[in-house]
Amino acid sequence: MSETTYAVLGTGMVGRALAGKLAERGHRVIMGSRTADNPAATAWAEQAGEHASCATFADAAAAADVVFLCVKGEHALTVAAAAGDKLAGKVLVDVTNPLDFSKGMPPSLYFRGEDSLAEQIQRAHPEARVVKSLNTVNASVMVDPARVPGETALFVSGDDPDAKATVQAILRDDFGWKHVIDLGDLTTARGTEAYLLLWLRLWQAHGTADLNISVNVRETK
Amino acid sequence: MSETTYAVLGTGMVGRALAGKLAERGHRVIMGSRTADNPAATAWAEQAGEHASCATFADAAAAADVVFLCVKGEHALTVAAAAGDKLAGKVLVDVTNPLDFSKGMPPSLYFRGEDSLAEQIQRAHPEARVVKSLNTVNASVMVDPARVPGETALFVSGDDPDAKATVQAILRDDFGWKHVIDLGDLTTARGTEAYLLLWLRLWQAHGTADLNISVNVRETK
Repeated sequence: MSETTYAVLGTGMVGRALAGKLAERGHRVIMGSRTADNPAATAWAEQAGEHASCATFADAAAAADVVFLCVKGEHALTVAAAAGDKLAGKVLVDVTNPLDFSKGMPPSLYFRGEDSLAEQIQRAHPEARVVKSLNTVNASVMVDPARVPGETALFVSGDDPDAKATVQAILRDDFGWKHVIDLGDLTTARGTEAYLLLWLRLWQAHGTADLNISVNVRETK
Repeated sequence: MSETTYAVLGTGMVGRALAGKLAERGHRVIMGSRTADNPAATAWAEQAGEHASCATFADAAAAADVVFLCVKGEHALTVAAAAGDKLAGKVLVDVTNPLDFSKGMPPSLYFRGEDSLAEQIQRAHPEARVVKSLNTVNASVMVDPARVPGETALFVSGDDPDAKATVQAILRDDFGWKHVIDLGDLTTARGTEAYLLLWLRLWQAHGTADLNISVNVRETK
């Protein structure tokens, strides 16, 4: 078992997928939710093995080295605020997307590319080490990239090189990602967040969310 | 030589790339610009062969069966308006992107996914048969997809199935695209227009705009 403790904030499909995979890989995982006795988190922890537990957002973040934020975009800042100063110094993997469902389906974005949820979270928690990633694929693909044929790509964005390296190691070693593209600083999350609008249309057109893109670049000699 | 006449509205890199390829393929091509004696259009027409000419936006559209709109996003509606009722009944391939450079680089979008330039153009010209395509790659890749390794994807969006079929045939036969994904109705252009924010970051990260994505989908048995 590694020395690293992971907090997964969120009990939905994404949170359960990430927490489940990390627990399966033998890591200590704490699923965070609003209350310590959240039924979904409790049920998850009971079946996820001896190193799995659940706690409030703040307690989960306090105990963790790496924190995954896996909630709906509309709750991202609230949940990060609930973890509050417990995020200081922690690697915070922001998996959220700024999808606005207030006018129904399909959703629009909160932004026009002039900002991103990742940057908003970073500004609200300047001592957290925010890395945007995993937000461009569905929960199943996040932890099992090989379910999509070919060598498709995942992206990381962030201002802290060491935090990005930590996340890239998790993506590679725990989740099986072979092709992770470092897009650059955290503003590049504007790109992956906006991509969700295309992803939603690809899902619609193909009738499945089990899809992903690969990035092909002309080789210059 | 085919019976089809093409108008390419715009004299920039995209317009010259598309018009050049269509002329090279033996088609009649008219490059449209604001004035009939535009120097860039005149120079292009002089070197592009006997079936190439130039004219105003309106005269080019009037003579054409298929019209490519290849101008900066900020000019898209103005240029379409200049072609005006000459667009009625025509296949209008909208290659524009709603990039807002007013605050510098990198640009933001005009929309948050609640609208698209393609839909705005369609609403302004209800009798035109608008198809959004080619806006997700740079000018060189548009007419030479093989310069990027692998079988990367291009997208079409539009409300008129026959117009989309016409465009798909051009993409395949004239430009060499093997993998064109029909995303659905014109609202799906919101997805490809928003993708530009990711495309710009991919360009930045890879140091070249000679790139494109492929879409990989899990096969269900």
